[in-house]
Formats: sequence, structure tokens, C-alpha cells
Amino acid sequence: MSAPRPRQMHLGLFILGTGSHVAGWRQPGAVTSFEDMAAIREIGATAERGLFDLIFMGDNLYADPAAHPSYTSRLEPLTMLSALAMSTSRIGLGATASTTYGDPFSVARAFASLDHISAGRAAWNAVTTANAVSAANFGRDHPDHSQRYAIAEEFVSVVRGLWDCWDDDALVADAASGLYIDPAKVRSLDHDGAFFQVKGPLNISRAPQGQPVILQAGGSAPGQRLAARTADVVFSVVQDLGEAQAQYAAFKAQLPAFGRRAEDVTMLPGVMPVVGRTEREAFDRLAALQGFLSDSNALQLLSDRFGTDMSVYDLDGPVPDIALPDSYHSFAGVMLAKARREGLSLRDVYNLMGAARGHWVLCGSAEQVADTLQHWFESGAADGFNVMPPFFHEGFSDFVDLVVPILQERGLFRAAYEGATLRDHLGLDRPARGVWPARLAAS
Amino acid sequence: MSAPRPRQMHLGLFILGTGSHVAGWRQPGAVTSFEDMAAIREIGATAERGLFDLIFMGDNLYADPAAHPSYTSRLEPLTMLSALAMSTSRIGLGATASTTYGDPFSVARAFASLDHISAGRAAWNAVTTANAVSAANFGRDHPDHSQRYAIAEEFVSVVRGLWDCWDDDALVADAASGLYIDPAKVRSLDHDGAFFQVKGPLNISRAPQGQPVILQAGGSAPGQRLAARTADVVFSVVQDLGEAQAQYAAFKAQLPAFGRRAEDVTMLPGVMPVVGRTEREAFDRLAALQGFLSDSNALQLLSDRFGTDMSVYDLDGPVPDIALPDSYHSFAGVMLAKARREGLSLRDVYNLMGAARGHWVLCGSAEQVADTLQHWFESGAADGFNVMPPFFHEGFSDFVDLVVPILQERGLFRAAYEGATLRDHLGLDRPARGVWPARLAAS
Repeated sequence: MSAPRPRQMHLGLFILGTGSHVAGWRQPGAVTSFEDMAAIREIGATAERGLFDLIFMGDNLYADPAAHPSYTSRLEPLTMLSALAMSTSRIGLGATASTTYGDPFSVARAFASLDHISAGRAAWNAVTTANAVSAANFGRDHPDHSQRYAIAEEFVSVVRGLWDCWDDDALVADAASGLYIDPAKVRSLDHDGAFFQVKGPLNISRAPQGQPVILQAGGSAPGQRLAARTADVVFSVVQDLGEAQAQYAAFKAQLPAFGRRAEDVTMLPGVMPVVGRTEREAFDRLAALQGFLSDSNALQLLSDRFGTDMSVYDLDGPVPDIALPDSYHSFAGVMLAKARREGLSLRDVYNLMGAARGHWVLCGSAEQVADTLQHWFESGAADGFNVMPPFFHEGFSDFVDLVVPILQERGLFRAAYEGATLRDHLGLDRPARGVWPARLAAS
Repeated sequence: MSAPRPRQMHLGLFILGTGSHVAGWRQPGAVTSFEDMAAIREIGATAERGLFDLIFMGDNLYADPAAHPSYTSRLEPLTMLSALAMSTSRIGLGATASTTYGDPFSVARAFASLDHISAGRAAWNAVTTANAVSAANFGRDHPDHSQRYAIAEEFVSVVRGLWDCWDDDALVADAASGLYIDPAKVRSLDHDGAFFQVKGPLNISRAPQGQPVILQAGGSAPGQRLAARTADVVFSVVQDLGEAQAQYAAFKAQLPAFGRRAEDVTMLPGVMPVVGRTEREAFDRLAALQGFLSDSNALQLLSDRFGTDMSVYDLDGPVPDIALPDSYHSFAGVMLAKARREGLSLRDVYNLMGAARGHWVLCGSAEQVADTLQHWFESGAADGFNVMPPFFHEGFSDFVDLVVPILQERGLFRAAYEGATLRDHLGLDRPARGVWPARLAAS
């Protein structure tokens, strides 16, 4: 009788622009355009070689060269992930789509389509779109934070309802009788809510995963509630272990109220690993990356993240006691808390933000990085990690080639894909038709 | 000195569901699901082997198993074409997106993305969405015909404007200086119109084709005007040569009023070829296909196409003198005209509609089919054809393997792709930045 296998770690690759370091594209040899499908194919191949659970693409709905230059121009997520579906065969594919600036019929349809195209690897990262600048591209007023989450709650319910309009075996295509679809196995949704009226059914049959996977990253209380009620995977923003443990415990504690178990949702804190063959090599690399930061965009980046004009403050002075506005990024709250704990200057905060936009930076030898990830994973801080490479390709392939094998040796991470779908990788059941709509209606 | 090459024919492959014959999926061995990416890959490979200019995917925004069963379930066009971009290398990729149930920022962005992913092969089939049933999936009232076209005129102008916000060389990515984007080379659109307010710029750089190709198929007077003003390729619905010649002449005559030449727009009448190695084989195949039609959905299909309840009429009686409603398909007008010319019964019309939904059916040996296409092409009826196979794969591969070689032998069709982009295939210049917005503002 073999020993029980230890609990398995899950790994997501976060991609948005040319890497998570604000100036990582300046690294010699780095990918400098996130519109280059050949480079993106290579990133996908590396992630699949590393047996990652999924690739997950963030998004913004506006162009602002000041905030993070390499984020201003990029491929649209659903088209990019659909293309990646063809050059990969096993890895999950997560695309961001907004519940504030989209409509549920189109979103449900597109992700069902991606799930068919990829044979069960689609995931929707549902976001409410924090930045008010987006509104001007859609001729709309930007709803406030609580309104955005009220809309999102209904939006996700409608999408999950649309995904369940078709029975799995509704498409009959019986050439002999001429029956193509069994009409008794397709039903409309007839949703009539506060924000959306959607009749349905969807014009695509039930997805290979039944319901594509839903990802969320909301850090606020309404964001946590939305995730606890509707998400399969949660990304979080943390800066240290204690914070991660507290967030993890608090989030998992919310699940029973929605009829869900702790293991029903995979929680992945974001981490920017800077890996070297030695500790020295890693810190040299981080120093080189930080050397690419410039004062000129420091205050712009801070202003964008904090949702308020920071140029009135001295970059080398203390972090001011600002009130975060409604539209703040969860990064900002985490950073301000850390600054107060550790007495950081505004420049210190900028350096941290520039490195990983507020995410945890983990710098060290491959062994040190693996040790720390294992420690977090085993001490109630994470079900795995959302890996945010500072740049591509080396900034990611080093993690895959140096860190992943150590995690595998320790039995913490798969040595091969064991299933075919993203749900398989995450250890999530394929939900029967009707389960999700009933759960959401009851909660 | 070689003789001048004859004018070249253009070929598009139209795909929507499992084929253009309403019951073509019942053909033994036919593709029975249009959600099967392996089958769609094979269709793309066949079209590229046949050196087609483009694949063009139609769409609907609702599911109605009654109207055309195989159209009810299918992949979403943009995700599907993005996937096809990876399994093909030269053929143009056209996806349908609605100007009534979409927004211009998202549409402009998605097609620019497809153009980057495919290295210059994207085309947008801009439709106004005729069927009012769609509205219920978007919680909206369906605008009437003239309103839809007023919206579409503005929508297309905004999309073309957004595509031109970036100079071709705005993305600098100069690692030495740290300049990623040259801000002087990116500008907002600041559109403030009757239907749309869109600030811009787009969050993706200028497309490889400058402006992705725009396709249109409107048959009404406002549809023709929209196409003459804004489209690069026009699909048309015709039943015979005289009608095609009249449409061709009338459409091309509209172009000078918008500052355009006849050769600036490629006009492709739709044709459903039923090809055999002999004439007998072709007619046997058509008879087999028509044998799959059933009375039960005959009146449903007619009702859908005519936009009015046809079940009150006798299927074997004469075609009634109905007034076409605002939302009619152009198919309906063409069919009614033909029925009056030729004294057809309602069943005759149904048989024609069932065969190709109102499009021209061209049945014969490969030689006969090539002869007829050449005759149309050389007598002022077409710049090429929108090929609508009755079913896949044989219903299409026979055209590629039997008819295309004859057209090539006659010097009417390319023997190899000569350019890399869809614009190259169509013989259209890559427009300089500013040309389209200026033209649309003036017209």
C-alpha cells in the first residue's frame, strides 16, 4: 500500500503585457511586444512544459501609456486565448472579461465557445473594471463600487444560467430521422432582473466542462462575497505570510454560508518570482530590473494605483495618510498597510509597486523560492500560486526549469497532467446541469 | 513581353453551421456539428489548399432550432476565427459582428487583435442584425430598419476611427531610453455622436493591414449605401445572371459619390455549387440533398425568412402577394421576385430556400460550373464568388479539387498566394493612417 499523496499545489501563469515588472521589457533579450503571437505561443509552450494548471490573462479597457507602458498595447484576451488553445493541448486558458462593460449573453457565449475550441480548458476571469477611465470608451458613466458589485452578482448568475440552458445530449444530429436538436433538452433562461433581461437559450451547446471555470480577484468585502458565492479560483494580492494566512482563513470561512466547502475554491496568491541559480544571481537580477525604473513615471504609477493625484507629495518623504477612493486597486490597500507597518517612504512603495504592481516579490535561489512556496502552501496561506514573471522569456522559463522540478521532487506538484480539462487539473468536479443556477438562486 | 494577365477572380468560403443546405448535415459522412474544431480546421485547410481569398463566417444572435437546425449551435465567430488563424497561414479570416448588439470599442479592438494574431488576415463582416428575436437576449428593443442603418453608419465610422488612433511606428520599445510608446504618435478619437461617445485611443497598436478589411452584405437601399461608403468587400444574394448584372452595375455606380473607384470594392455574389464529376452525378447529389427536406419545417423556414407567419398559406398553392416587413432578409425579396417571374408555388420557393436559403444554386459538372462562373465573371456580374457549400467536407472539397484547377488553367484564378495579407489577396492597398477617417467624415 503506497503512502497517500501529499496535497497538490496549483500554479497559474499571470500574463498582462510584457511581464509584471513595470520596466521588465528593458531587460536585454526580453519580449518587448505583447502583440507578438510568436512570443505568446512560446510563453504558452513554456507554461505547458511546466505543467501549469492555467494561463490567465489580465486586462484593461483603456490605453494609458503613463501607468505601465507595456500594458497599453496588447492583444484582446478572448481572441488571444482562442489562438493559444490551438498551440497548446492541456493547459487551462483564462481570459478577463468585464461585468461592467460587457453583456452576459456575449460573455457566456464567448467562453462556452473557448471551452469547445479548447476541449474543456476555458476560464473566465470576471472583473468589475475598477478604473473609471474605461467608461469614456463606452459612452457610459462609471458605476460606483457597490453598484459595480451588485451588477456583477447578477451578471455572473445570468452567465451561469445561460451555460445551463442546454442538456449535455441535446444535440442529436440523427441523420436518419432528421432530428438535429431535441427541443425538449434546450430551454430558455427568461431572466428578468434589476440590471439584465436575458431570454436565452445560448446559441451554443453545453460546454465540455459543463460550466467553464470562473476566476475572480476582488479584494474588497463585496469582491470576497462575490468570489465566495460564484468563483472556482481566487487570486489574491498579499505582501507577507501573515497577511496571506489571514486572507486565506477569512475567505475560506465565508464558503459554508454559500453551501460550499473550502476545497471548492482554489486560492492562489500572486507572486513575482525572481529566480537565480544562486541567491546572489537572483538579487543581481532584481537589482538590474529595479535599475530600469525611472522617477518620471513613479508618481504616475502611484497616482494610478491609489486613484488619487500623488504628485503633490515628496517621493522621498513618508507615505501620506491618504484615504483610498472608491475605485482603488486592492494593490493600494495592501501597499499602504505594509508602508505603515514598516515605515516605508513613498519611494520605497514605488520601488515595490514598480517591481510587481503591489504583488509579493520573492527573490532567491531556486531552492529558496521552492522552500518559501512550500512553507506558504503548508501553513494555510495558499492552495498554490499565481506566478507573475517580471519579464519574458527567461524571467519565466527559469521558474519552470529551476523551481518546478524541486516542487515535483518533493511530491508537491504533478509530474504529468493527469486529466484533460482545467477542472481536472484543479480537482473540481464537472457540475451537473442545474446545480449552479439552483445554488445561485438559493444564495 | 508577356501578355497581360487576365483580371483575377476572388473566392470566399462562406461558413455558417454545417453547410448552406438546410439539411445538408444528413448527407452520409457529412460534418454534423459546427462546434467541432477538428472539422473546422479541416475546412480551413481545404480552403487554403484551394487558395481562397478568405473564409467568412456568418452569425445569428439567438438560438432557434426551427429555422435551420444546424445554425442553432455553433462556435462564436471571433474565437473560432482566432483559432483558425493558428492552423492556417495565408487565407483571410472574416468574422461577423453586429453594429446593433455590440459596441464599437470592443469590435474595433477584437478585429485589430485578430489582425495582429493572423499577421494581417482579419476581416469584419459588419451586420445590423435583422432578426428582432435577438433583442431579447440583450434586454433591448430591436431598432427598426432605418434606425439600425443610422446606427451602423456611425458605428463603422467609429471603428475605422479607432483603428487609426495609433501611428504605425508608435510602439518604440527603446530599452536604452526606456521609451516604450511615443506619446506624440497615439491620439484619442474623442467621438461624440448621435449614438456613440467613444474617447479612445484603442489599447492595441495599429493593425498589420492598417485597417482590417470590412465586409458587408446589405441588400436594401440603406445597406447598399453603407457598403458603398464603408466596405471593402460586398456579398450579394442573386438568383440569375441578369439580376446579378443589374445589382453589380447599380452598386458600382454608387461608389464615385463616396470618392471611390469601382475596383475599390470586391463584389461577390453567393453561390451554392453542387458539383459532380459528370452533370448526372451533380444532379443526383442535389436530388439526394433535396430528399432530406421535410414538410414539417418548410413553413417555419419560410416564416423566418419572410418575417411573417406563412403557415396560413397552402404549401402547394401560389406564392401569396405578401408585403415584406421591415425586418425581412434580402433572400426574401430575391425569392419573391423570382417566384413572380417564373410562377413558382410556395413549395417551389421552399425547395429553393431549403437548398441554399435563397442563394443561387449552381449544379453541374466541374466544367459546367467553371464555365458559368467564368461567364458571370466576364459579363459584369461579379468580381468573384462567395462559395456556400451545401455540406462539409465533400460538398466543398469537390469544388476545390475539381473546379478550382479549371479556373487556374484558364488563368482566371491564382496558382499560388502572391501576398501575405487579405488586402494583398484582394488587390487592395494598405491605407495610410487618416485616409479612412477623413473619407468618412467628408461623405
